[in-house]
Amino acid sequence: MLQELKEFFERRDRFARLLGFRIVEMDEGYAKVEAEVGEEHLNAADVLHGGFLFSLADYAFAVASNSRNDLSLAVSANILFHKGISDGTVTATAREIRAGKSVAAYSVEIHDGNGTLLATFTGTVYRKGTALV
Amino acid sequence: MLQELKEFFERRDRFARLLGFRIVEMDEGYAKVEAEVGEEHLNAADVLHGGFLFSLADYAFAVASNSRNDLSLAVSANILFHKGISDGTVTATAREIRAGKSVAAYSVEIHDGNGTLLATFTGTVYRKGTALV
Amino acid sequence: MLQELKEFFERRDRFARLLGFRIVEMDEGYAKVEAEVGEEHLNAADVLHGGFLFSLADYAFAVASNSRNDLSLAVSANILFHKGISDGTVTATAREIRAGKSVAAYSVEIHDGNGTLLATFTGTVYRKGTALV
Amino acid sequence: MLQELKEFFERRDRFARLLGFRIVEMDEGYAKVEAEVGEEHLNAADVLHGGFLFSLADYAFAVASNSRNDLSLAVSANILFHKGISDGTVTATAREIRAGKSVAAYSVEIHDGNGTLLATFTGTVYRKGTALV
Repeated sequence: MLQELKEFFERRDRFARLLGFRIVEMDEGYAKVEAEVGEEHLNAADVLHGGFLFSLADYAFAVASNSRNDLSLAVSANILFHKGISDGTVTATAREIRAGKSVAAYSVEIHDGNGTLLATFTGTVYRKGTALV
Repeated sequence: MLQELKEFFERRDRFARLLGFRIVEMDEGYAKVEAEVGEEHLNAADVLHGGFLFSLADYAFAVASNSRNDLSLAVSANILFHKGISDGTVTATAREIRAGKSVAAYSVEIHDGNGTLLATFTGTVYRKGTALV
Repeated sequence: MLQELKEFFERRDRFARLLGFRIVEMDEGYAKVEAEVGEEHLNAADVLHGGFLFSLADYAFAVASNSRNDLSLAVSANILFHKGISDGTVTATAREIRAGKSVAAYSVEIHDGNGTLLATFTGTVYRKGTALV
Repeated sequence: MLQELKEFFERRDRFARLLGFRIVEMDEGYAKVEAEVGEEHLNAADVLHGGFLFSLADYAFAVASNSRNDLSLAVSANILFHKGISDGTVTATAREIRAGKSVAAYSVEIHDGNGTLLATFTGTVYRKGTALV
């Protein structure tokens, strides 16, 4: 099931593909995704755009929250930006902090290639009670 | 100065360009930006990716918070997702709710082409005391 | 029904009573509550405690979100603190920004007696589908 | 210095005293505080008020962020409510996740007496560059 869901995300999430996001690990309530920072992801201050960091965290959050094949829709998310970077690899790791039937919550940490914490994300989902695949 | 800053963002923010974000209005502490939703912005559930909505709000937030040519870096942001869409135009409107010298705060609303509220965003910045242009 | 719910909150919410919170207005998806700032509500810096401001906003949020007699439990909340005060009256006004059947969202503004914005709050609830009164 | 700051908070934070908050541990960028849940802290649904949980987390956040005697003012905070309780002891543990000179960030976890996670909090502060004691 996990492998099927992983392929579903890789095939179907076109925005993740546009930004080059890769699912590195996936388990029940857990996901690790990564991406390479390119010139086209920088903001006006020559730093990786906050929207790119949020999108990467949001993707890890989506993969982790849908990992039991129970369609989970994001309701809210919060992000704290700690440090800016301009190149290299970024990794987002999502963990379940509330495993409810209707409502669940996840925390996501984003690190650069040296293991420095770049951003902290939390998010909540509502579970529809329908399958993805 | 506003025109110069607008051109600076349009020329320098490569991620905004990658996603097709356009600055429609810009004033002191205020910005309206918009974009067309494409197939490549959809998530695995065939709905506009939350990361795209966040990125659009974040761009309006960046343009509004930097509109006085005082470099403003995002510290935190929060987003509530109300409704999903799959195509059409989306518009993000950022307004200043705290106009501090060192710390400022903004709220951003995202609407679709029919004026339906899709997401509500709030964000805070730290001001460096240096100029952008 | 609104009057019955108002009395239910006034009689049953013991924390709101401890802090002197009063429901000033209540309608479907809407509430205005207020309180007087006392010496016992100040923090170590002689400023009204952030927890008091949050609690007041949270109470307005609870009253507004439960105003249709559909038990609504807080899932997440976010607050931005704009300005500190040390005495006077504070008012929190909650408005519905997403009126869903299972999930709903509210924004709350807190003002002092002069109409100055002190804090901005947003929150989401999950609806249980059971009645309060 | 830590002992002096601890006593400063215990003596000066009147809202923490009103709610019975105790500082259990305090170190640089770290604090653990606890409180007993009383009847007077319950909401209309007979559950510990979200405002009480937020206030406890906010107090741990304030103690941790001011632990280097550099006055730190809360700018934003976010809380996710996972589980309601009606009595017993609650403990909030704050840890520094960004140790900046002007801006810093903290995460706080609240547990009940059995070690069950009740709420997850994150917050940011702005540092004034002045001493507390």
